[in-house]
Amino acid sequence: MAGRLYGIGVGPGDPGLLTLKAASIIKSVPVIIAPKPGGDSESLALSVVREHIDFSRQKVITPLFPMSMKKDVLESAWMEAAKAAVDELLAGLDVAFLTIGDPSLYSTYSYILERIKVIVPDLISETVPGISSINLAAAKAGIDLALGQERLVVMPPGRDMEEVKKAIADFDTVVLMKVNRNFDGLKNMLKEEGLDGKAVYIRRAGTGREQVIRGLENVRAEDVDYFSLVIIKK
Amino acid sequence: MAGRLYGIGVGPGDPGLLTLKAASIIKSVPVIIAPKPGGDSESLALSVVREHIDFSRQKVITPLFPMSMKKDVLESAWMEAAKAAVDELLAGLDVAFLTIGDPSLYSTYSYILERIKVIVPDLISETVPGISSINLAAAKAGIDLALGQERLVVMPPGRDMEEVKKAIADFDTVVLMKVNRNFDGLKNMLKEEGLDGKAVYIRRAGTGREQVIRGLENVRAEDVDYFSLVIIKK
Repeated sequence: MAGRLYGIGVGPGDPGLLTLKAASIIKSVPVIIAPKPGGDSESLALSVVREHIDFSRQKVITPLFPMSMKKDVLESAWMEAAKAAVDELLAGLDVAFLTIGDPSLYSTYSYILERIKVIVPDLISETVPGISSINLAAAKAGIDLALGQERLVVMPPGRDMEEVKKAIADFDTVVLMKVNRNFDGLKNMLKEEGLDGKAVYIRRAGTGREQVIRGLENVRAEDVDYFSLVIIKK
Repeated sequence: MAGRLYGIGVGPGDPGLLTLKAASIIKSVPVIIAPKPGGDSESLALSVVREHIDFSRQKVITPLFPMSMKKDVLESAWMEAAKAAVDELLAGLDVAFLTIGDPSLYSTYSYILERIKVIVPDLISETVPGISSINLAAAKAGIDLALGQERLVVMPPGRDMEEVKKAIADFDTVVLMKVNRNFDGLKNMLKEEGLDGKAVYIRRAGTGREQVIRGLENVRAEDVDYFSLVIIKK
C-alpha cells in the first residue's frame, strides 16, 4: 500500500508561524521533501522546520527548484521532485512535501501534486494550509486586507500597469506579489496617480531581513527581491 | 507601564491550525479576551485554544459580540470589549485578544484595536496572523486560490450579483465570504451563467460540522450558515 502524501505550508519564514498540525506531521513522517532554490543556499522551508526534524531517523530530500522562467527547465525540476516523492510513497512511506507560505497561493506544490497523481492515481493526500506572506505582511504593516464591505484583489508578478491601475480603482485593497520584476514601473505609476502614500512595501516579513516601508519612493531598488510584495490600500 | 496587547488569529476552528507562536503567547499572558457570539454558546476562538490555557492562573474574559447588523449595538459591544482590554493593559498586564481566522481578513479585532488606541495612544501591540478560513477551504476543496499568472478576488457578504458576475468574468478565482445572506441569489446567478459546476461550497472547514460540496445545486439551504463560503474558479 502506498504511503500518504502531506502538502504542508510552513508559513512565511518565521519558525513560530508553523502550525501545530504541520509540526506534528513533520515530526512523525519518515520522509520530508523540501525544495531549495539554488545549489548552495539551504532550503528556506527546511530552515523553518529544522528543529522538528530528527536527521538521524528521518530522510530529508532537497530537490533543486531553479529560479527560472523557462518551461522545460521547470518541468524537468518538477518531474524530478515528483519522482522522488513517488519512490518513497510506493515504498509505503508517508511523505511531507514542504512549501513556503500557503500551498493554495502561488505555490509550486500544486504542480508537483498534479504530476504525482498521474503516476499514483489512487494517491491519498492531504493539504495543510500555512500562513501566507500576504497575511503576515498585513499584520506587520498594520493594514486590514479587507474589513466590513471591502473587497481584496491579489495579483501575481509581471502584470501590466494599466491592469494594476484598474484594479486599484475598482477594489479597496490590492496586493501585488513578487514586485521585483517591475518595481520601477510600479513606483512610477503610483507616483503619477498620486497613490504612493497609500502603498506599503514589505520584504521577507518574519525573517531577519524584514523590511516594512511606507511609500515606494522610500525603498532602495537594490533591496527589492523575490520575496517583496506591495499592499495598496485606498 | 501599560501591558502589551497581542491580536491573535487562532485559525479557522481546528485546534491543530493554531501557530506555535500563538500557542506560546496564549500560554504566557495573564489575560485572554475571547469574544463570543451569543449568550449560551461558547466562544469559538476560546474552544480552539482551550488546551493551552491554565484557567486557575489566567484570567479569561469573554465579551459578547452580538450577530447584529445594527451600528449602535455593535459599537456598544466593541467599546465594552475595548474597555475590558484597557482595564487590564493599564494595570500593567499583557493581554491576548483572540480572533477566529486571520486578524487582517474581515476580523472584528481591527475595530477593537482602533478603540483601544484612542484610550491608550502609546499602546504597544503586535498582530499575530492566523490561518484564514479561505486558505483552509481551498486546501479542503483541492483548489488553488491562485497559481502562476492567476488573479484572486475576495468579496464580503451581501454584494450585488451583477458585481459578483463581473468579478467572475474579470478574474480567475473569486471567493465569496459568508454566503448565507444571499445564497439563493448566488445559486440562481451561477446556474443562469452556466457556472454552478465551477463553484465549491465550503462550510466550517476544520470543524466537526465541515461540508465541502461541488455545485451549489447540491447544497441544502438549511445547511448554509454564517461560516459558509464559496470559491468560484473558472
